[in-house]
Amino acid sequence: MNTWFSELQTPEVSLGLKVKSVLWQEKTPYQELAVLETLSYGRMLVLDGAVQTTIRDEFVYHEMITHVPLTLHPHPRKVAVIGGGDGGAIREILKHPSVEEAHLIEIDERVVEASKRFLPEISEALEDGRAHVHLTDGIRWVKEARDFDLIIIDSTDPVGPAEGLFMPEFYRSIYEALSEDGMMVAQSESPFLEPDIIQRVMAGVSQSFPVARLYLASVPTYPSGLWSFTLGSKETLAEPRAVSFPTRYWTPEIQHSCFVLPRFVEELIR
Amino acid sequence: MNTWFSELQTPEVSLGLKVKSVLWQEKTPYQELAVLETLSYGRMLVLDGAVQTTIRDEFVYHEMITHVPLTLHPHPRKVAVIGGGDGGAIREILKHPSVEEAHLIEIDERVVEASKRFLPEISEALEDGRAHVHLTDGIRWVKEARDFDLIIIDSTDPVGPAEGLFMPEFYRSIYEALSEDGMMVAQSESPFLEPDIIQRVMAGVSQSFPVARLYLASVPTYPSGLWSFTLGSKETLAEPRAVSFPTRYWTPEIQHSCFVLPRFVEELIR
Repeated sequence: MNTWFSELQTPEVSLGLKVKSVLWQEKTPYQELAVLETLSYGRMLVLDGAVQTTIRDEFVYHEMITHVPLTLHPHPRKVAVIGGGDGGAIREILKHPSVEEAHLIEIDERVVEASKRFLPEISEALEDGRAHVHLTDGIRWVKEARDFDLIIIDSTDPVGPAEGLFMPEFYRSIYEALSEDGMMVAQSESPFLEPDIIQRVMAGVSQSFPVARLYLASVPTYPSGLWSFTLGSKETLAEPRAVSFPTRYWTPEIQHSCFVLPRFVEELIR
Repeated sequence: MNTWFSELQTPEVSLGLKVKSVLWQEKTPYQELAVLETLSYGRMLVLDGAVQTTIRDEFVYHEMITHVPLTLHPHPRKVAVIGGGDGGAIREILKHPSVEEAHLIEIDERVVEASKRFLPEISEALEDGRAHVHLTDGIRWVKEARDFDLIIIDSTDPVGPAEGLFMPEFYRSIYEALSEDGMMVAQSESPFLEPDIIQRVMAGVSQSFPVARLYLASVPTYPSGLWSFTLGSKETLAEPRAVSFPTRYWTPEIQHSCFVLPRFVEELIR
């Protein structure tokens, strides 16, 4: 059978992936959820029609949203991930030996359940004793949270359930939830296709954090293949620490070069 | 009308672009040629169903295939581009004031003609007095060429007319056509989707050139969005020179960071 999944990345650009089988499909209280087996990228989680993660390229996004801030923090102990119900960010966070607690705050329990069932390579660390899963609204949870060293916003696109995660007030709550040398990172979409979102996130993060920096990584199943992350820090960034575990995208040199922006991206956030 | 162009980037991955109008379509002696007006990327040249260049993202590829080697060469005077009939690489080459001659060697006259007619922003420099267009086979042309400072292989994919441009014997001919401190660059496909081509080009270039290096850039309309270039040099690479013209992707910092490879790409060419 010749079956294709197609994501409308914008109303005028689509990514097509040939599908071997549809493993799961449901309407959760928050969104449409599907798990497909694709021929080129393996098993894939889809929310409201948008690719969230695939077995073959998830390493890029999950390594880059975690190791870049974690190696910049002098001693990260308490970390939280808002969204990211697949557990991939938690898996990478727990590779850092200083981390004592990794909290996942996911509004949609079904995302966690589907990931545990169909994407065990990604979700496995959710079973770790240091992982704490909170099935609740991230905006409300952050208001009560305190003394975190790093909070990561691993959200879907800024439509639907994730809309509030792109608001300046949310970055302010995160600031309050962080310890004195705390940091945040938010996924902030594609510089080619969503330049206005990058500008909005950068402006919002800069309102609360004295240090705000953009960095980039190549994720082939995300729109345009080039993805951005916005880092906010209460303190001046120190030299990154080394890591003692193997990686597939991140290297000490990538840690520096991911902050080097093409001219048109520099100009976006100037 | 809801019309979409779709490129099968691999048998299992496709890119779809919504089309405003089909400006031109023909079968040349070498390939199927089309020029489409897309909604997100503007006018676009397509050869044998594969996106070659679009008005909106061509700056990345054309700046990175030219300025990276040109700023590494101490005094580039004579430059050639094999393929690249759209003229975009020639446009960027002629921005370097030391360049006295820029030769375009394109096998398919129709590509040059269509680019002049439909993509004047890209092809404009072909009218420059320093530009010389040779409508002939690049493999044969290179055998007679001598004293070039830089030869760029701006080819289509290694199927059809461009197949011979990916052979070790061709890199050897290029070596012979270069001056003592000469360099070459070849576009070498996507690390995510065509890792074997990167390995083949790197092995071939390394056979002839003492220095062979891979670098990367993000081109959203090319498969996976991450593109590679393989540089060969007769001499050790010097510090890059500054440039005196504006760019949209290249910066002096990108000149360094484009050589920093994600771990999985490093391992590909180890």
